[in-house]
Amino acid sequence: MKRFIVIDETVNDLYGSQVAAYFKARGVKYKILHLPTTEENKSMTLVTSILEEVHKFGIDRRTEPIIAIGGGVCLDIAGLAASLYRRRTPYIRVPTTLLAYIDASVGAKTGVNFANCKNKLGSYIPPVATFLDRTFLCTLPRRHISNGMAEMLKMALMKHKGLFELLQKEGRSLLDSRFQLRIPENVHTDAASVSTRLAIETMLEELAPNLWEDDLDRLVDFGHIISPELEMKILPELLHGEAVNIDMAFMVYVAHERGFLTEEEKRLIIVCMQSLELPVWHSDCTLDLVQRSLTERLKHSGGLLRMPLPIALGKARIFNDIEDSIVCQAFKKWCDEHCETTMKPQ
Amino acid sequence: MKRFIVIDETVNDLYGSQVAAYFKARGVKYKILHLPTTEENKSMTLVTSILEEVHKFGIDRRTEPIIAIGGGVCLDIAGLAASLYRRRTPYIRVPTTLLAYIDASVGAKTGVNFANCKNKLGSYIPPVATFLDRTFLCTLPRRHISNGMAEMLKMALMKHKGLFELLQKEGRSLLDSRFQLRIPENVHTDAASVSTRLAIETMLEELAPNLWEDDLDRLVDFGHIISPELEMKILPELLHGEAVNIDMAFMVYVAHERGFLTEEEKRLIIVCMQSLELPVWHSDCTLDLVQRSLTERLKHSGGLLRMPLPIALGKARIFNDIEDSIVCQAFKKWCDEHCETTMKPQ
Repeated sequence: MKRFIVIDETVNDLYGSQVAAYFKARGVKYKILHLPTTEENKSMTLVTSILEEVHKFGIDRRTEPIIAIGGGVCLDIAGLAASLYRRRTPYIRVPTTLLAYIDASVGAKTGVNFANCKNKLGSYIPPVATFLDRTFLCTLPRRHISNGMAEMLKMALMKHKGLFELLQKEGRSLLDSRFQLRIPENVHTDAASVSTRLAIETMLEELAPNLWEDDLDRLVDFGHIISPELEMKILPELLHGEAVNIDMAFMVYVAHERGFLTEEEKRLIIVCMQSLELPVWHSDCTLDLVQRSLTERLKHSGGLLRMPLPIALGKARIFNDIEDSIVCQAFKKWCDEHCETTMKPQ
Repeated sequence: MKRFIVIDETVNDLYGSQVAAYFKARGVKYKILHLPTTEENKSMTLVTSILEEVHKFGIDRRTEPIIAIGGGVCLDIAGLAASLYRRRTPYIRVPTTLLAYIDASVGAKTGVNFANCKNKLGSYIPPVATFLDRTFLCTLPRRHISNGMAEMLKMALMKHKGLFELLQKEGRSLLDSRFQLRIPENVHTDAASVSTRLAIETMLEELAPNLWEDDLDRLVDFGHIISPELEMKILPELLHGEAVNIDMAFMVYVAHERGFLTEEEKRLIIVCMQSLELPVWHSDCTLDLVQRSLTERLKHSGGLLRMPLPIALGKARIFNDIEDSIVCQAFKKWCDEHCETTMKPQ
C-alpha cells in the first residue's frame, strides 16, 4: 500500500512527524510533499510540481488516494492535481484551518488562481472522504480562527437564526477556546461541536443539490460578490474570510438600504462581526471596486446579478434588481459609519 | 454572441478563412487561435496558452462553448482547457482527421502528455456536441487516412466481422477516395458512410456504458497496450494509428499462438492491414519494450493484465493469463515473418 501526502509546510512543521509516524506504524510506503500553499502560490505551477512528484512516486490510480493536509489552498490545489492525474485519482481532504474545516472541506470544487483571478481554473471533483479533526485548530493563530468564523457567520446570516444567536452569544469564547471542547463528554452539546455542525449542515444543504453549480442562484455566494477582487487586489493583506466579511458587512448595508433589515438588525450583525474580531470595512474596498465587481458578476452569471441578501436574521433571498443608487447610498453610509473607527493604526 | 475557436495551424491554413467567414456572416464576435497541435506539443504548456487567450477574449462559461477544430491532439488539449476554465466550460469537437473523426470525437476524454507519458493528465468531460464532416478529409495526406483506418480496423477486429469484411473489400478504395462519396445520393449505402458509422457505433457501444472507465476491462484498449510506449519512444516517427496497428499486429500473433486465431485468420488480418498501407512491424518494438509495457499495464490496471485479444474475426475477449512464454514465442514468429520485408528502405 502506498500513500502520497500533500501537506502545507507550516502544518508539516507542526504535525509532519506525527503524520510520518502514523504511516510508518502501519507499514505503508509513503511520501510527504510539503509545500508553501499560500494564496499567492495557488497556481498551476504548484499543481504541476505536485504532479511531477506523484508521477515519480507512483500510485495506483484507483485504490491509492492522494491525501491533502492543510488549509483551503492546500486542499484546492491537491484536489486539482488529483483530478488531473490519469484523468482522476481519488483524494482525501484533511482540513487543518477552521476556514477549510467549515468551507473547503465541503463540496466538489478544486481550483487555482489564474490571470490574477481567484480560482479561475479548476474542476468539480469531490474527494472520496474528508477527515474532520478539530484538534488541528489548537495551533492555529487567533486571526485564522476569526477568519473561519466569517464563513460560519455567512451560513448563519443566510439560513440559520439559531447559529447566528450562538455566534452572538458564544462567538468570543469559541475564539478563545479555538473550538476545543471544554468538557470532553459534551461532544454533542458543546458550542464548538454545535456551531461547526450547523455551519457544515447548512452548507451541505445548499451545495448537495447543486454540486456542479448548474443553478447559479447560490446563497453561499453571499460575501463572495466583491471580496474576490478585493482579496486579490491587496494580497496577502487580507485573509479570505476577512475579505468575505468586509463584503458581507457592505451587503448588510445594502439590505438595510433596501429596507430588508432594520437599523437594529444591521447593528446586531456588525457588532457580532466585530466581536469575532473580523474587519467590517476596508479603505481599498472603493465604490469603483464594488461597481466593477457587480458588472463582472452580471457578465459571469448569465446576465443576472443573483445577489444574495439577508431579509431578516437567518433568512435570505436572491435579488437581480438592486439599483445602482441603492448601492451608492449604502456605500456612503457604510463608509460614514466605519471609515474613521477602522482607520485606526493596527 | 462570442465564439472562441482553437484550430490546428495546418487546418487553419486550409480552412481558416472559411471558418472566419462563417462567423462573420452570422455577426458573431469570434477569436480564432491557431496552434501547432502536434503530439510533441501536447502538453500543459499549450493548454495554459489557450487559457490565457480565452481569458483575454472573455466568454460566458455557460452559453459560449469553445470550439476545437483539428485532429485528436487539438480536440484533446482544447477539451482539457475548456474543462479547466472556470471549472468547466462547454466545448464542441470538430474533427478534421479520419483518426479524430472515428476515435477522438467519441467519448469524454481530454488529455495531454506529461513526464513523457501519453495522456497522463486530463479529464473526463464530454463535449456538448461533435460535428462530423468528412469533407475535411479531402485535404488529408494519404498516410493520415491509413492512420485513421487503424482505429476502424480495431473496432472491426474486436466487435464486427462485417466491418472487417468491408475494410478487406473496400479499404483500398476508401483510402483512394479519402472517404468521400462517389455518388452523393448514396449517403446511406456508400462504403465511406457505412464503415465510419459502424466504427463509431461500435465504439459508442463500448464507451457509453463506461464513460468514466470505472470498468477497466475495455475492448477499445486493443492496440493500446504496447503502442503508447512505442509511440512516445520514437516520436514523431509513427502516427498514433500506425503505432496502434503495430501493437495490433503483434497481438494477432499472440492470439494465434494461444490458439484463438487460425493461421489463415492471422494472415487475412495482416494482409488487410497491409492493404490499408499500415505498418505491421517495427524494429523499435523490441521484446523488452513489449514486456515492460505489459508490466506497466499490470501496475495501472488494478493488478490484472486485461489484455483484449481477438478470438475469431470480429470477436474478442479480455485475458488476464497470457504467459510470458506465449508472448516470447509470438514475438519471435512475428519478427521472423516481418523483420526482413519491413526493413526495406523507405
